[in-house]
Amino acid sequence: MQQSSFNVRFGDCDPAGISFYPNTFRWIDATFHDLLKNFGGHAILCEKLDAKGLGLASADAQFRSPLTDGDLLRVTLEIEKWGPRSVTIRYTGHVGSRLAFEATEVRCLFKTGERGVFAAPMDAVRKILEEGTDG
Amino acid sequence: MQQSSFNVRFGDCDPAGISFYPNTFRWIDATFHDLLKNFGGHAILCEKLDAKGLGLASADAQFRSPLTDGDLLRVTLEIEKWGPRSVTIRYTGHVGSRLAFEATEVRCLFKTGERGVFAAPMDAVRKILEEGTDG
Amino acid sequence: MQQSSFNVRFGDCDPAGISFYPNTFRWIDATFHDLLKNFGGHAILCEKLDAKGLGLASADAQFRSPLTDGDLLRVTLEIEKWGPRSVTIRYTGHVGSRLAFEATEVRCLFKTGERGVFAAPMDAVRKILEEGTDG
Amino acid sequence: MQQSSFNVRFGDCDPAGISFYPNTFRWIDATFHDLLKNFGGHAILCEKLDAKGLGLASADAQFRSPLTDGDLLRVTLEIEKWGPRSVTIRYTGHVGSRLAFEATEVRCLFKTGERGVFAAPMDAVRKILEEGTDG
Repeated sequence: MQQSSFNVRFGDCDPAGISFYPNTFRWIDATFHDLLKNFGGHAILCEKLDAKGLGLASADAQFRSPLTDGDLLRVTLEIEKWGPRSVTIRYTGHVGSRLAFEATEVRCLFKTGERGVFAAPMDAVRKILEEGTDG
Repeated sequence: MQQSSFNVRFGDCDPAGISFYPNTFRWIDATFHDLLKNFGGHAILCEKLDAKGLGLASADAQFRSPLTDGDLLRVTLEIEKWGPRSVTIRYTGHVGSRLAFEATEVRCLFKTGERGVFAAPMDAVRKILEEGTDG
Repeated sequence: MQQSSFNVRFGDCDPAGISFYPNTFRWIDATFHDLLKNFGGHAILCEKLDAKGLGLASADAQFRSPLTDGDLLRVTLEIEKWGPRSVTIRYTGHVGSRLAFEATEVRCLFKTGERGVFAAPMDAVRKILEEGTDG
Repeated sequence: MQQSSFNVRFGDCDPAGISFYPNTFRWIDATFHDLLKNFGGHAILCEKLDAKGLGLASADAQFRSPLTDGDLLRVTLEIEKWGPRSVTIRYTGHVGSRLAFEATEVRCLFKTGERGVFAAPMDAVRKILEEGTDG
């Protein structure tokens, strides 16, 4: 559904010479935002949906092989499941044919209501992402 | 077993005004390295154990409430389980009494062998972390 | 005028084993925002001043000695000069008595006007920072 | 001499909605390392030159216009001056024809000697970068 590429660089790596693992989540998040760009980007979508953000309920990653300076990382994003108030997204990261990681994000559409921030129904988001339209 | 504190700052936050979630993993990793400091730190331990690093097999986080500029985040680390070739570590993040996140890391002792990098037995690491001694 | 401390950690360091230099600017910026916290923090000040941000016109650093995992970095901030539409801020970073860096930021009070973003007069900011009052 | 491109993304931006300025130095550093990749990359060059790193003596940036989520940043690198023990490098960052920043790095070839780390003569580095050869 979305594919983004990243050059893994010296500054992304730690004293063990491999990429500092929080950067993996940075590349995953960037891939998600690249997906949103097809629909105007995060800011425009949030305005349209009267939302604060398409933020995280949870995230996980399984690290299958290390990323190092010079690697060209290719991240693939697939929507795994739409819940009533969340969406589960699968990511895989490859360098050439080598699997670097598999990861999941569960995201919600956070809105601000009378009693604070809450996870709103996902129908409107789903419509936009699946049909490229808001109705 | 280990508790570390972090000031969440402006630069840790994104355009939605809450902390960019890869930073959560940065704070978790920092707490782990603070634990290691009681035993000489990552570099000295790796030299002692003839290892490349105490790196990640997997990581996950459940985000319970947002972190924002000005929050004082307190991260608590507990060893959950020792496997033969991995250790599972639990983290909780609080701001005052408010739960910000729960997270898990599975870490391995990576060594370089004849056929590349492999996850070595954890006995030596366990001994050091549990007894504060290497034998 | 303001002093902040930072633990330099494994994840802040690069494959050469010393802190990745953009992090120096992250610690400098954090020290500036710690200063603002004495006056309510960046968000509250911007609201009060009807501004977008106290952002950068320029920044520089001279790196005097390397920072490594385990260092406790102490950053000292001093206002060097108030200009009509900017403020020059001096930073020094020490680990114990060892000088790690000297740095400067020139910051402006950015507001949004009819013809886009502009650097507004600094009087109101100066009043708050020098007198701890807005009038 | 070298040109690299970067997508400015949501996670690179701060609560003011513009890119957190230490990231500018991250993109500058990445462009420098992209230059090195033409000659084998930082690790291989350091091995060849028996050096610890091509690190920073100083860095500065003048921010001319803000970078925001969705911008495609193009960074151009030019060697400005070779000193006996340093090299001065100029960077400019553009989004389309709009100037985003101008910056300078002064880098040294750091080696470890009997009395600690020192800045070594730059002749060997210059030869490699100018002639694409080490002799």
